[in-house]
Amino acid sequence: MKQIQGGVTAAKGFQAAGIEAAVKYRDRKDMALIYSETPCVAAGTFTTNVVKAAPVLWDQRVVKESPYVQAVVANSGIANACTGKEGLDCCEAECRCAGELLGISPDSVLVASTGVIGRQIPVDRITEGIRKLAAAKSHTLEAGTDAAKAIMTTDTVEKEIAVVFEISGKTVTLGGMCKGSGMIHPNMCTMLAFLTTDLQISKQMLQKAVSADVVDSFNMISVDGDTSTNDTLLILANGQADNEAILEEGADYDTFCEALHFVTTYLARKMAGDGEGATALFETKVVGAASKEDARTLAKSVVCSSLTKAAIFGHDANWGRILCALGYSGAQFDPENVDLWFQSVSGSIHIYGNGVACDYSEEEATKILSDPEVTVLVDMHMGEQTATAWGCDLSYDYVKINADYRS
Amino acid sequence: MKQIQGGVTAAKGFQAAGIEAAVKYRDRKDMALIYSETPCVAAGTFTTNVVKAAPVLWDQRVVKESPYVQAVVANSGIANACTGKEGLDCCEAECRCAGELLGISPDSVLVASTGVIGRQIPVDRITEGIRKLAAAKSHTLEAGTDAAKAIMTTDTVEKEIAVVFEISGKTVTLGGMCKGSGMIHPNMCTMLAFLTTDLQISKQMLQKAVSADVVDSFNMISVDGDTSTNDTLLILANGQADNEAILEEGADYDTFCEALHFVTTYLARKMAGDGEGATALFETKVVGAASKEDARTLAKSVVCSSLTKAAIFGHDANWGRILCALGYSGAQFDPENVDLWFQSVSGSIHIYGNGVACDYSEEEATKILSDPEVTVLVDMHMGEQTATAWGCDLSYDYVKINADYRS
Repeated sequence: MKQIQGGVTAAKGFQAAGIEAAVKYRDRKDMALIYSETPCVAAGTFTTNVVKAAPVLWDQRVVKESPYVQAVVANSGIANACTGKEGLDCCEAECRCAGELLGISPDSVLVASTGVIGRQIPVDRITEGIRKLAAAKSHTLEAGTDAAKAIMTTDTVEKEIAVVFEISGKTVTLGGMCKGSGMIHPNMCTMLAFLTTDLQISKQMLQKAVSADVVDSFNMISVDGDTSTNDTLLILANGQADNEAILEEGADYDTFCEALHFVTTYLARKMAGDGEGATALFETKVVGAASKEDARTLAKSVVCSSLTKAAIFGHDANWGRILCALGYSGAQFDPENVDLWFQSVSGSIHIYGNGVACDYSEEEATKILSDPEVTVLVDMHMGEQTATAWGCDLSYDYVKINADYRS
Repeated sequence: MKQIQGGVTAAKGFQAAGIEAAVKYRDRKDMALIYSETPCVAAGTFTTNVVKAAPVLWDQRVVKESPYVQAVVANSGIANACTGKEGLDCCEAECRCAGELLGISPDSVLVASTGVIGRQIPVDRITEGIRKLAAAKSHTLEAGTDAAKAIMTTDTVEKEIAVVFEISGKTVTLGGMCKGSGMIHPNMCTMLAFLTTDLQISKQMLQKAVSADVVDSFNMISVDGDTSTNDTLLILANGQADNEAILEEGADYDTFCEALHFVTTYLARKMAGDGEGATALFETKVVGAASKEDARTLAKSVVCSSLTKAAIFGHDANWGRILCALGYSGAQFDPENVDLWFQSVSGSIHIYGNGVACDYSEEEATKILSDPEVTVLVDMHMGEQTATAWGCDLSYDYVKINADYRS
């Protein structure tokens, strides 16, 4: 497997576009299209929030019922959540419009929205936007980047990646893009992510791979503990790589899962590091846990702790908050048997062991905590299980961004 | 029942003191003593964090094993958490010293600490502090206030209250004090709270009353979702009101529970409103829930949502975040059947119903959200159960306070 340039247009037969539709934002791209020249099998995972946005309800049905999918239309600015029947009517209008303009069935169109909750999307603007998208769509890498830019809300950079790998002697490409960066918390992690691949695979195996993967990728990140109403991960596979179709588990499936995990983890880390107001990516690796479930719970608890996040922002080696967050996670352990390290490109220091603080240098700790990527390594000494979670620090800018997000 | 002046010295036979011991802070009171002239039955509830501070481990044993308790020694500045054997030795030294100076058994002394985790308490300073406390102790209301000031960390005001009520023809007094204001999250809510009463009651019934009460008082507040290592609620009852002893449930027990709930709710609200960096008390009342458990879960989820808290700080009627927080709480419901109101002394506006936004005035909403106490009323229309949770907004100052708390 090898990383290459590009995003959602990297795989064969995929086109994309990102344009300005003024759905809510002005003077920036706010609508994206992903289009496959041939029908795709599609799979998806969606928010577990009881309050689901209209596009989530819409896509859940399409992914389940439509045998093939050929396009995704997404907008930023307005989430189309808590919008009642009018919100679902908007999804229908989008699919009908996109179907007509792209010459495909409306049932093969997926939709996604992100932005402020509770406001209705102006349907005339969004259909006019689809017209522009259909005209602008292209297979270039730039078109993929335009799409990645168009789905951003409070993100500061677009997030895309592509990889190639071999399946039954054929080169397969997998590309993706995603956006954060507030209301980011697992289950399904609060975000939009779109993956495209020319892999030939059954719908069932595609769904299986994605569902298994998110548990240790997107669902292991948190910016603020708020699980959104709009979380959506969609993957489209059009089969143009012409590999022997993956219809069951085996070596080919494993190769795909490995590439998938590389891509989703890359995007998840980007999302965490670009969390609202973030100045640092904050990673927590738990090793030696008694169970996988415990490892995940412990790692997640640390990256979700407001106090720990504020300390990371302040480059303050306040490790007591980390131990505290492990302690209230719900996992059982003996605090006397835990070891903690702070790590970054600047080095690694042992900070807690045998139930008390180690004799570390505060200066060295501050240096490590001043790097843009900071890792807390936790050894529970209870077993062999590991997990990694990703978050970011809590800064003044998080408050600033969210105190008046709607205006 | 009637509220009166005072705090922990309001009830008959109780004395207190607050003095400067320079445990960590300089030029401010940082050690408190509560002393009863006669032996008390005691009850307590403690943090559920796996990582328990030394004084928590110590007090759990004393409350369980000692038939009578007569004093509480508390310090702020250092939490005596993650301090290993040396931390427990410190507790022992405190109790021995206090026992000698007060002329009581060391087994009848409780200890409590709050502040930074992972640092050892200088035992010489704390024993010198106990000497000062023993000399300064007094039954005046000022002495109670001194004690309330001495347990403060990032709190901006001391928090105390006292009430009187009648039991079997006798006037009983119940007083209390507590401190917040970071690492505040239930189970047992992250805090120190000390209650004193001259009620005559069995230890068993006292524990029963306190354990039942915290579920709907202290455990319903959250400042930042971090459950501390040090949470401690202690109540001492010395029987000097000379009422017929409460030995079982009944009218007398109910009268006491009512007074207890008034006092704990008062202190809990004070703690939430004085959360780190808070500019407003943020209350969420859930009515019409299917079960009590659901009502509590829903109310807590809203006051814990970082995004909602930031919106309250910005006086921004971003109700979508509230619906989102209800949705990921874990409770099941139909979003189309929920009604939301914003309320304050300035008025009440219906903001969401029938699955969409109501036609409310943003100006009026901003006015309500600019008051120092803001309530979100949520009607689930699913049953008769209710719950109220208390939190505060998320401000720049929360980040400021916690980015460099240790220095």
